[in-house]
Amino acid sequence: DPNLKVFSLNSNRKLAAEIANVIGVELGKCSVTRFSDGEIQINIEESIRGCDVYVIQSTSSPVNEHLMELLIMIDALKRASAKTINIVMPYYGYARQDRKARAREPITAKLCANLLETAGATRVITLDLHAPQIQGFFDIPIDHLMGVPILSDYFKNKIMDGDIVIVSPDHGGVTRARKMADRLKAPIAIIDKRRPKPNVAEVMNIVGNIDGKIAILIDDIIDTAGTITLAANALVENGASEVYACCTHPVLSGPAIDRIENSTIKELVVTNSITLAEEKKTDKIVELSVAPLIGEAIIRVHEEQSVSTLFD
Amino acid sequence: DPNLKVFSLNSNRKLAAEIANVIGVELGKCSVTRFSDGEIQINIEESIRGCDVYVIQSTSSPVNEHLMELLIMIDALKRASAKTINIVMPYYGYARQDRKARAREPITAKLCANLLETAGATRVITLDLHAPQIQGFFDIPIDHLMGVPILSDYFKNKIMDGDIVIVSPDHGGVTRARKMADRLKAPIAIIDKRRPKPNVAEVMNIVGNIDGKIAILIDDIIDTAGTITLAANALVENGASEVYACCTHPVLSGPAIDRIENSTIKELVVTNSITLAEEKKTDKIVELSVAPLIGEAIIRVHEEQSVSTLFD
Ligand SMILES: Nc1ncnc2c1ncn2[C@@H]1O[C@H](COP(=O)(O)O)[C@@H](O)[C@H]1O
Ligand SMILES: Nc1ncnc2c1ncn2[C@@H]1O[C@H](COP(=O)(O)O)[C@@H](O)[C@H]1O
Repeated sequence: DPNLKVFSLNSNRKLAAEIANVIGVELGKCSVTRFSDGEIQINIEESIRGCDVYVIQSTSSPVNEHLMELLIMIDALKRASAKTINIVMPYYGYARQDRKARAREPITAKLCANLLETAGATRVITLDLHAPQIQGFFDIPIDHLMGVPILSDYFKNKIMDGDIVIVSPDHGGVTRARKMADRLKAPIAIIDKRRPKPNVAEVMNIVGNIDGKIAILIDDIIDTAGTITLAANALVENGASEVYACCTHPVLSGPAIDRIENSTIKELVVTNSITLAEEKKTDKIVELSVAPLIGEAIIRVHEEQSVSTLFD
Repeated sequence: DPNLKVFSLNSNRKLAAEIANVIGVELGKCSVTRFSDGEIQINIEESIRGCDVYVIQSTSSPVNEHLMELLIMIDALKRASAKTINIVMPYYGYARQDRKARAREPITAKLCANLLETAGATRVITLDLHAPQIQGFFDIPIDHLMGVPILSDYFKNKIMDGDIVIVSPDHGGVTRARKMADRLKAPIAIIDKRRPKPNVAEVMNIVGNIDGKIAILIDDIIDTAGTITLAANALVENGASEVYACCTHPVLSGPAIDRIENSTIKELVVTNSITLAEEKKTDKIVELSVAPLIGEAIIRVHEEQSVSTLFD
């Protein structure tokens, strides 16, 4: 369909090329550079009048640069008479600022939703929002994809006949662990952190049976990797035979890589929702592509078919 | 008035302190930092419920960081029940992207206006917009201050009895040069760039009499300093006795400082609408403060008096 156009900004160029390949289109021509003073300069180099445009951009680090590229691109597309402007955000940055946890805090996840709509987005396709409630921050349609099937399939093939247990590193992630456990026909366990008294170190209590089992820790985001590496070490201390970890979004900032290298995690499995910088790649990290998932989602959205059946 | 609160973000902390001093208030307590992954973290550390809040922030380089700090701060203030949220932007970034000069360009100056309003700004106070039409991009009140009086006063005191001429480096700046000339009771001249044939270097033609005179070049923004240094050199070649340059907004990116140092410009006079990085400070550059102007403007806005009489 000549009316379907896919553009890539700077966050995920390789993934975008793979997605275009899955769909069977060429990426749209467009340059995204900087003026001498650092202001973003965008030139769309082909007509998109009357087209359904899909823009691939994660608001991963540098988050403010990537977000502004996206907003300015949406503005340019709107003024160039695109029919629909569909924003594909494999990683939705600022998702952890999704509520006022303390007085006078911003809710930046909601602000970002408002900014995207104000710029002119007509639909958002995203993957594993930190809180599914963020869908309600939008007044435009949002398609929410899941990384669990991709991560589960990897382990299904990797660990053919081991005795596995899926572990959530905290209470907030139990639903996600349950989904993976269903796909792998495995039991779940939960790391139950408690602080016995104020100013005393947290105790890592494990709820569920992990003894002698291959544990697979699952989270949505791994950022500084503190939680996940402490959890892995606790699992080994408590009798797990091996520990794998996986997540959809490898933020991996600050001490993350060092912590993972020095932990009992045998392998960390992630997706390319966030582009892994070269210097972050290690033998322990396995990267799976979300291009088939996102490509198929774009095709279905464009053909006005349901996206939810992708997860049956 | 305890209901008047002034907050500073990261672009102009020194100027903000001076402004607070002019008004006679303490700066509001608020921390603006980054999470490990680069996301902006803002904590407002005092109640602002029911207050008229003024936030000082230029969207100078790094423009996307400074803009997002501002938007997130506005979001936090709105949710903390500020009565009014008045944005003081001594420099309004992206102002040069104010029209579609070519097909499929964004109009980022308009986008920024929309983003500020969406976040919750109720008024904008700014200084020397690159195009005054940008005022019309806002649906909220905007107070537009001028740097010409400050720059003019400096030269009035500096060059007590020389034969001066105010020079606009291009056609677009003639109105600004005229305003300065009125204040200094001097004539004007204009640099009239023309390209005689395609692919032939531009010719710098000078319209007006500059022979033996002290020339003062005035512009709103000096960015890479190409235009202004070529203009200065042309003025000297054509008989000006000395050349000064001045502008409101010292963007000074890329080769700017080198070009100025190696030019015939004797002194470059700027304001602190943009904080000059230490490594950009040279003996040729004189910095004037806009704190008295902005402080007075805030007082008048707060007391619901006219701001325009500031320029009589
Ligand atoms: N980029 C970030 N890095 C670390 N913490 C964050 C970030 N953004 C928000 N937060 C904080 O993380 C908490 C929310 O995380 P969670 O409890 O996992 O939903 C809130 O208290 C936020 O202040
Ligand atoms: N940050 C920037 N640096 C250099 N040029 C810019 C910048 N932003 C916009 N422009 C371009 O400058 C032109 C407008 O400048 P002017 O003619 O002085 O109003 C437009 O063609 C813009 O594409």
